[in-house]
Amino acid sequence: MNPDALRFGPDGLLPGIVQSPAGEVRMMAWLNREALRLTLETGFVTFWSRSRQELWTKGATSGNRLKLLQVRPDCDGDALLILAEPEGPSCHRGTDSCFDGDEPWPATLPWLGRLEALLASRRAAADPAGSYTQRLFAQGVDRIGKKVVEEAGEVVIAAKNEDREAFLGEAADLIFHLDLLLLAKGASLRDVVDVLQRRHADATGGKA
Amino acid sequence: MNPDALRFGPDGLLPGIVQSPAGEVRMMAWLNREALRLTLETGFVTFWSRSRQELWTKGATSGNRLKLLQVRPDCDGDALLILAEPEGPSCHRGTDSCFDGDEPWPATLPWLGRLEALLASRRAAADPAGSYTQRLFAQGVDRIGKKVVEEAGEVVIAAKNEDREAFLGEAADLIFHLDLLLLAKGASLRDVVDVLQRRHADATGGKA
Repeated sequence: MNPDALRFGPDGLLPGIVQSPAGEVRMMAWLNREALRLTLETGFVTFWSRSRQELWTKGATSGNRLKLLQVRPDCDGDALLILAEPEGPSCHRGTDSCFDGDEPWPATLPWLGRLEALLASRRAAADPAGSYTQRLFAQGVDRIGKKVVEEAGEVVIAAKNEDREAFLGEAADLIFHLDLLLLAKGASLRDVVDVLQRRHADATGGKA
Repeated sequence: MNPDALRFGPDGLLPGIVQSPAGEVRMMAWLNREALRLTLETGFVTFWSRSRQELWTKGATSGNRLKLLQVRPDCDGDALLILAEPEGPSCHRGTDSCFDGDEPWPATLPWLGRLEALLASRRAAADPAGSYTQRLFAQGVDRIGKKVVEEAGEVVIAAKNEDREAFLGEAADLIFHLDLLLLAKGASLRDVVDVLQRRHADATGGKA
């Protein structure tokens, strides 16, 4: 990214949109040239506070930093999309995103990241006498693998019937149990996307 | 959403971040009160153009409108996250997102939406003599279902071996073929997320 191609506003600021690898928009704040330089140099997202008129590295006090993965300007260089790995909740209210509210969000793919984070916490609390998910993690890869094969069979049977809800329910079961298997093996959906993305890049001559 | 709780800037504007259901950040532009009112009233995202000093409904001329799903303010009411269904590419350059560039994007869940859009185009061009994916779509649900069951078996075998790359490769195969099955049945990953999200809401007393 070439910082000279950016068009900072008359106040010297650009909006910075922070997105997690799961795809969640975590927050929006402002960057001046110095905040951008520090973000790129330190690897942790740093903003310019308009109210306090000072630089602030997100999470410097709370510990909930944003580990920089990539910065992208938009087509006319007056906004930045900042892909970052959150080290905790991103909102001062303790919610993952500053855009979290009471109203339920329609179904979006980033929600799979929230589900996976929940499942990972169940794995950390694996318990033979716990919830369904805690029990599966306690039983381990053999048991979870058996469920993956079973759900794959069920999704195909449901695909042969003309019951859309049942089919989607079985597909949900399959993805749910596949994610348990990924977590049980110390992996994540994002690792799978990485494989698919690399294959696609290979197939299209390196263009992602 | 209560528009009176929003804190428009001294210029009467708020940044509006447009996100697709796949989770992609499509663009960032500005809204004044009137643009927000029109967005909510018409169901199509409308901005205030700072350069032209006029209201513009995104896609009014190009046809690439943004069908509103939900608007969310952030915690201090000075930015809006606009969830919208894009009716085509969102950037004037013809790319899906204004943040698309030459640099490859690290693996993120929203990329699954791009892959699915590509697979949907293969389905529309199903061809017994075409690419692997076109052939599978031409062969139909039975053949794709057989692959889903086969890949589920392979992911479990790979999970039992200590080869992380092979395991992730099989998990990628399973998700790929499951998505083909979803598309062959006129469904999508988002429909599956919808099921998972509703189940989660039921399990947690309605909180999404």
